[in-house]
Amino acid sequence: MAKKRTKKQNKKSGLAPGSVIYTGDKSDKNLFIEVFDYNKEQCIEKELHSIEEAFDFKLTDCVSWININGLNHVDSIEKLGNHFSLHPLVIEDLVSISQRPKIDEYEDYLFVVLKMLHLDAEEKLNYEQVSFILGPNYVLSFQESEGDVFGSVRERIRQGKGRVRTMQSDYLLYILMDAIVDEYFSVIETLGDKIEDLEADIFEGTIDESATKNIQELKKEVLKVRRSIFPLREVINRIEKHESDLIQQRTKTYYRDIYDHLIQVTENIDIYREMIWSLMDMYMTTISNKMNEVMKVLTIMASIFIPLTFIAGIYGMNFEYIPELHYKYSYFILWGVMIVLFIAMLIYFKRRKWL
Amino acid sequence: MAKKRTKKQNKKSGLAPGSVIYTGDKSDKNLFIEVFDYNKEQCIEKELHSIEEAFDFKLTDCVSWININGLNHVDSIEKLGNHFSLHPLVIEDLVSISQRPKIDEYEDYLFVVLKMLHLDAEEKLNYEQVSFILGPNYVLSFQESEGDVFGSVRERIRQGKGRVRTMQSDYLLYILMDAIVDEYFSVIETLGDKIEDLEADIFEGTIDESATKNIQELKKEVLKVRRSIFPLREVINRIEKHESDLIQQRTKTYYRDIYDHLIQVTENIDIYREMIWSLMDMYMTTISNKMNEVMKVLTIMASIFIPLTFIAGIYGMNFEYIPELHYKYSYFILWGVMIVLFIAMLIYFKRRKWL
Amino acid sequence: MAKKRTKKQNKKSGLAPGSVIYTGDKSDKNLFIEVFDYNKEQCIEKELHSIEEAFDFKLTDCVSWININGLNHVDSIEKLGNHFSLHPLVIEDLVSISQRPKIDEYEDYLFVVLKMLHLDAEEKLNYEQVSFILGPNYVLSFQESEGDVFGSVRERIRQGKGRVRTMQSDYLLYILMDAIVDEYFSVIETLGDKIEDLEADIFEGTIDESATKNIQELKKEVLKVRRSIFPLREVINRIEKHESDLIQQRTKTYYRDIYDHLIQVTENIDIYREMIWSLMDMYMTTISNKMNEVMKVLTIMASIFIPLTFIAGIYGMNFEYIPELHYKYSYFILWGVMIVLFIAMLIYFKRRKWL
Amino acid sequence: MAKKRTKKQNKKSGLAPGSVIYTGDKSDKNLFIEVFDYNKEQCIEKELHSIEEAFDFKLTDCVSWININGLNHVDSIEKLGNHFSLHPLVIEDLVSISQRPKIDEYEDYLFVVLKMLHLDAEEKLNYEQVSFILGPNYVLSFQESEGDVFGSVRERIRQGKGRVRTMQSDYLLYILMDAIVDEYFSVIETLGDKIEDLEADIFEGTIDESATKNIQELKKEVLKVRRSIFPLREVINRIEKHESDLIQQRTKTYYRDIYDHLIQVTENIDIYREMIWSLMDMYMTTISNKMNEVMKVLTIMASIFIPLTFIAGIYGMNFEYIPELHYKYSYFILWGVMIVLFIAMLIYFKRRKWL
Amino acid sequence: MAKKRTKKQNKKSGLAPGSVIYTGDKSDKNLFIEVFDYNKEQCIEKELHSIEEAFDFKLTDCVSWININGLNHVDSIEKLGNHFSLHPLVIEDLVSISQRPKIDEYEDYLFVVLKMLHLDAEEKLNYEQVSFILGPNYVLSFQESEGDVFGSVRERIRQGKGRVRTMQSDYLLYILMDAIVDEYFSVIETLGDKIEDLEADIFEGTIDESATKNIQELKKEVLKVRRSIFPLREVINRIEKHESDLIQQRTKTYYRDIYDHLIQVTENIDIYREMIWSLMDMYMTTISNKMNEVMKVLTIMASIFIPLTFIAGIYGMNFEYIPELHYKYSYFILWGVMIVLFIAMLIYFKRRKWL
Repeated sequence: MAKKRTKKQNKKSGLAPGSVIYTGDKSDKNLFIEVFDYNKEQCIEKELHSIEEAFDFKLTDCVSWININGLNHVDSIEKLGNHFSLHPLVIEDLVSISQRPKIDEYEDYLFVVLKMLHLDAEEKLNYEQVSFILGPNYVLSFQESEGDVFGSVRERIRQGKGRVRTMQSDYLLYILMDAIVDEYFSVIETLGDKIEDLEADIFEGTIDESATKNIQELKKEVLKVRRSIFPLREVINRIEKHESDLIQQRTKTYYRDIYDHLIQVTENIDIYREMIWSLMDMYMTTISNKMNEVMKVLTIMASIFIPLTFIAGIYGMNFEYIPELHYKYSYFILWGVMIVLFIAMLIYFKRRKWL
Repeated sequence: MAKKRTKKQNKKSGLAPGSVIYTGDKSDKNLFIEVFDYNKEQCIEKELHSIEEAFDFKLTDCVSWININGLNHVDSIEKLGNHFSLHPLVIEDLVSISQRPKIDEYEDYLFVVLKMLHLDAEEKLNYEQVSFILGPNYVLSFQESEGDVFGSVRERIRQGKGRVRTMQSDYLLYILMDAIVDEYFSVIETLGDKIEDLEADIFEGTIDESATKNIQELKKEVLKVRRSIFPLREVINRIEKHESDLIQQRTKTYYRDIYDHLIQVTENIDIYREMIWSLMDMYMTTISNKMNEVMKVLTIMASIFIPLTFIAGIYGMNFEYIPELHYKYSYFILWGVMIVLFIAMLIYFKRRKWL
Repeated sequence: MAKKRTKKQNKKSGLAPGSVIYTGDKSDKNLFIEVFDYNKEQCIEKELHSIEEAFDFKLTDCVSWININGLNHVDSIEKLGNHFSLHPLVIEDLVSISQRPKIDEYEDYLFVVLKMLHLDAEEKLNYEQVSFILGPNYVLSFQESEGDVFGSVRERIRQGKGRVRTMQSDYLLYILMDAIVDEYFSVIETLGDKIEDLEADIFEGTIDESATKNIQELKKEVLKVRRSIFPLREVINRIEKHESDLIQQRTKTYYRDIYDHLIQVTENIDIYREMIWSLMDMYMTTISNKMNEVMKVLTIMASIFIPLTFIAGIYGMNFEYIPELHYKYSYFILWGVMIVLFIAMLIYFKRRKWL
Repeated sequence: MAKKRTKKQNKKSGLAPGSVIYTGDKSDKNLFIEVFDYNKEQCIEKELHSIEEAFDFKLTDCVSWININGLNHVDSIEKLGNHFSLHPLVIEDLVSISQRPKIDEYEDYLFVVLKMLHLDAEEKLNYEQVSFILGPNYVLSFQESEGDVFGSVRERIRQGKGRVRTMQSDYLLYILMDAIVDEYFSVIETLGDKIEDLEADIFEGTIDESATKNIQELKKEVLKVRRSIFPLREVINRIEKHESDLIQQRTKTYYRDIYDHLIQVTENIDIYREMIWSLMDMYMTTISNKMNEVMKVLTIMASIFIPLTFIAGIYGMNFEYIPELHYKYSYFILWGVMIVLFIAMLIYFKRRKWL
Repeated sequence: MAKKRTKKQNKKSGLAPGSVIYTGDKSDKNLFIEVFDYNKEQCIEKELHSIEEAFDFKLTDCVSWININGLNHVDSIEKLGNHFSLHPLVIEDLVSISQRPKIDEYEDYLFVVLKMLHLDAEEKLNYEQVSFILGPNYVLSFQESEGDVFGSVRERIRQGKGRVRTMQSDYLLYILMDAIVDEYFSVIETLGDKIEDLEADIFEGTIDESATKNIQELKKEVLKVRRSIFPLREVINRIEKHESDLIQQRTKTYYRDIYDHLIQVTENIDIYREMIWSLMDMYMTTISNKMNEVMKVLTIMASIFIPLTFIAGIYGMNFEYIPELHYKYSYFILWGVMIVLFIAMLIYFKRRKWL
């Protein structure tokens, strides 16, 4: 048995609660911080070189989006967290990358964790944890490493397209989350395609024993995606019902829209799940059908030739007195009998639809 | 593996929320607008040639039904939406055809999305998204293309049959939705017929390996229909509980009636679903039964003739001293023995019910 | 494929809501109306010849039970409905026989629909829709055709047995519904018996390929019965919670009793359902066990005789120099060897428990 | 088909509600009544010879436990019921033994029905219905026949052990129900043991076709036990929430304790249920594994000897010109070839792990 | 059948409620009591030799953690319980080791029961019941025997790391429970590893009939772990909602954190459960695939050699007049024919992908 123990969670086991430890495996990433600070009139975009530079944006009149990449830089994140007066458990959760999507409501900020799913070049699925802190006029976002699905958001802020520059930080959080949820659609579509491909392969029989493995892999993938997305519905629901100035009434309609999208995504996931479960049954009937084919060939060959061989065996006996042996046309008559038998057999199997 | 990627949803991925983009595949349809404007005394029926002509009907004293076909004409729909003061997200949803049935309640109108299912000439199932805007004295309906299930509704408005001409726009919305839900019954009946046909074919064994495929197709169809219809129950429920002048108390009884119909439809769908799942099991036992048949034939043939062939083989040996060979009646006795054996075998298999 | 389309529901598709159309298939039944009009002191039992005769009973001081049989007589029912001021949708539902059990609460009457199940002489299950209108001092009941489970109710009213003559119309409705629910027990017992019979047949192996079909039929029957009975729980629940003078407080205890019975019935149905699902598994193992038997016979016969035939074949060869051929006792020694081999084989198979 | 119809429920079908009819099958049991009348200071234990003797205990200052065995004595029970002012439906339910566990709350008494499960000497499971009436200072208990699980309760009352003699009737009801629930633990443990035994038998393969039957029997037993125990949770829950002097606040902690026990029992039942369902799967794989074994033996025997027999057949042909026949060492060379082939085959099968 | 009855629960059956009986099987363990008594400034750590020494810590101003190991010492525990004024049912539950995780809220203390899971050296899973009494300034913990997962907690108290020394007893309870829940992660990871190992073994086919047994064992393990962990969610939930000074508002955030962890653990368990269920299906298809392989070998060997043997048999017949026998090249021509047939067969099977 191949033992490949992965004790990721255990990194923290036995430590005091509130210990700020990075639990991921991307420990060599650089710290990359970018800031967008904008209002209706202007927009400043800046790359920061140290975490301290970010502190000032807490108090500007504009809406600030501070995007921190590189959760392995625990010290910087702790400093930032303390400056923004985050609860110790929040700072701990920011760098603990196996969180479940959740929302924690504090007095003057919201803490949201979710999973960013995206496909890499080889159509492999990547899971990255993204955390948001929504304050009165800022949004902090935390990612494990550079590279995200926020390209279009940046563009819109820069160019002042749409409503973003005229709205508050709650709308900024909305378009960031919307970008992530939009990406879910591509992800589950790719899953759907994989299932249909596998299904087609099973129907056409162009599949070997690896089918079981592929089905099982797909099953696990769907379960994992499901687990990453399902809890988010509750998160959005809580945002919609949140009662404080952080989330304005007019923005809630937009969160409702994300919620509708999530319902669509999760419904699709559940349908895929049901379809995968039936793939195994389908594969099983395919195997049985094949075995039936094999058995028919065997049965037909054996049923035809075993009796004929018996007849030949009869006249191979060495008894002294076998009258037929001496009759001149015996051999030819026998051939006739055997051919008739052969054809009768064929007709019989034809009738039973085995041929 | 056949890769047939369909990135329908992604058309919008990366765009600002509120971008009004048609997501369907019927981009070459003409814009067709018809209006019914009626009250107790009179009824005007008109085909409009531009969207601007529809604007006036917002303010008439009569009830107006404005039916817009051709969601690809995004500009016209946006103009209309702005004239009727619709929320940007509503206008976006109107032309985004992969919506889930839902209701959004705004201050002075209701926005309802649902799926119109109907069978085409070849009994293939078509899904079309229909959206309604219910205002104080008008109903806007939006369809992807011409052709719908509202024929009887038009007839009733024209002829003033039933209550429709004496009631308000909420009743108009009801009869439109009722027409759609009535059509669901035909649709699921056809599904039921397909299941029963497949079931009969499996029982009678007149089915080849395509069975698995057919079962799987049917399963998907039922899941898809289910997903199109189930959320509508919640929609109707919300209409019944809606608290504003848009839905009058006396009309709610009628919506309750639609609700009852929906429960009936969805119950039937769930029963069909359960039956389809057991079809696969049935097919599996059918295969196994057939294999049993095949095996019995093989076993009977082999069990009868292999021993007989052995006996014949014995007396085909060339030993110099085999006393039986020289006895005159050996051959005939042997035949007797073999026939007795043969009959004994037949009786044995008869007793085991293999014959 | 046998196409047996049944477009029952569609009879109404496209018609105005509130159209009173009989949707059943018993269109040639006579209209049969009987009335029981009773109080503590007296009881009048009468068969009516026209629907108009029933009108007067609305206003008597006594409790009146007007039992109308023959839903195809739509005109008479519509007249009666109008006289008793029923809502148009109620009149429509009265004659539409594919209703789900439900209750509609109106200001001065309750409308209850349920399914009367009873077994006919050949133990075939019949479903008949029965509707009740409960008014202040009357109960109207509507059945498709004559013949019901109310025999004992009539007897009790006539003879003044029990409490019925001293109670109001709500108690009358209770004993009518109780009679229907009591009959459910017989029905599900018969289902249970059928399941046990089938189970026994499968265990004993005295079943052919029809088993799959029988199981599937039973499955559908159970699903259909379930659908006819389950919603009734909600109906009774609503009656219990109904807040008006129509249902008196002291009668509610009795409805609670029906509710308990219904829970018992539905629990049994669910157990039967679970048992039927496992019947298919059982049948599958039975088939596999049988195939195992067949395979063993084949394997034993082949394994014993194929090697022996090979040995015989060896000494049937025509080589000039085969020393054994000339030794006098070769033949007998060979027989010995073959018998030893034969016995060894038998012992081997015995040990593996194949014999 | 063996038809063993059991129309137990129907005994009552068609009778007026409130008809007091014993529905069990122990109609020949004697009436056995015992009374415990106790307070802190004293305890009277008495066997009564007629039901009338029990009437006086209603009014004593002590707590009275009147235990009536023999539900077939309907008249006596009716008399008692009337004396204690029980509702007619309660009296009816007392003797109707197919009740589901339930609680009915009346103004001055509680009516509780539950199932007493116990194992008889042969480890067969017995179900007996026990009903309790809890009044202000008395508990009536009703059993079908003598013999129960209350031995320890009697002992504790007699000896004044524990709190029982210092508490009210609600505590008495508690210890009676606690005794019944404690017995459930033994019952489900025995079920668990049976499942494990069957599981072990299946693993070891020491099981014949009866396995399917045993699994099905066990499945039914578990479903029946489940149905007898599950509704009791709701009953206890209702007692805990009961708001009247009948159940004192300080006793509710004890009922909470029973509730915890019930949760434990029902969780175990659900685990057993899940395990039984997987037994069938396990048995199925066992059968398939066995068939695989059988097939391998057949394939090995056939694959080895059929080619060898063919070779022997070649040199059994009677052609005049077969050069090999005349070469002196042909026979021995052929033996060599055949032995090599034989060994090659063995190695091949060894490599494929079939041997 | 091997009967291994285990009547653990029954130890108590028939005893008065409130009887304090140890139900575990570690009756020979020593009583080991340790105390931590600390506040911000100081920390006293002590091992006690008798239970009476623990009494004084109830009243100190510091937070006291009294950790009692050895539930078999029933008398000592009863004394302690009485001194701390615990309810009799609580004392009973402390030593009854088959409790379900639960919380009982009393006026001046909370009683929490949960399961401590940890892996021993051989990766075997151990279940130990741990109970906590949370008082105003003390936490009592009860374990069956020495050895726990609280090492890091002790260290933190001693060294004053983190917040523990500055917080109240509710925080102490939190870090104790947090230590237990952290250990759950290791436990379920090990389960996950076992499942993946088994899965890999099944894929690679390196598994014999024991697979079924292993799968079943794993299934039971997962069910048992699930049952030990699931109810804890409700416990934590109740602590969070608890309204008294025992649990301070600022500590509740920490309990919320445990809750999130529990959700993660239980979600993983449910995914493992689903995966185990599909293992059986996978194993079944593996068996079927293997049988297919076996059958193909048999069919190919038989289909090739049976016809050839028949041909050889033909020319082994002893008819006087078989013209071919005398033609000089017959033998060689026949060889040619047979080789052609042989190759044709191979091509045929190659085409059907059986080779």
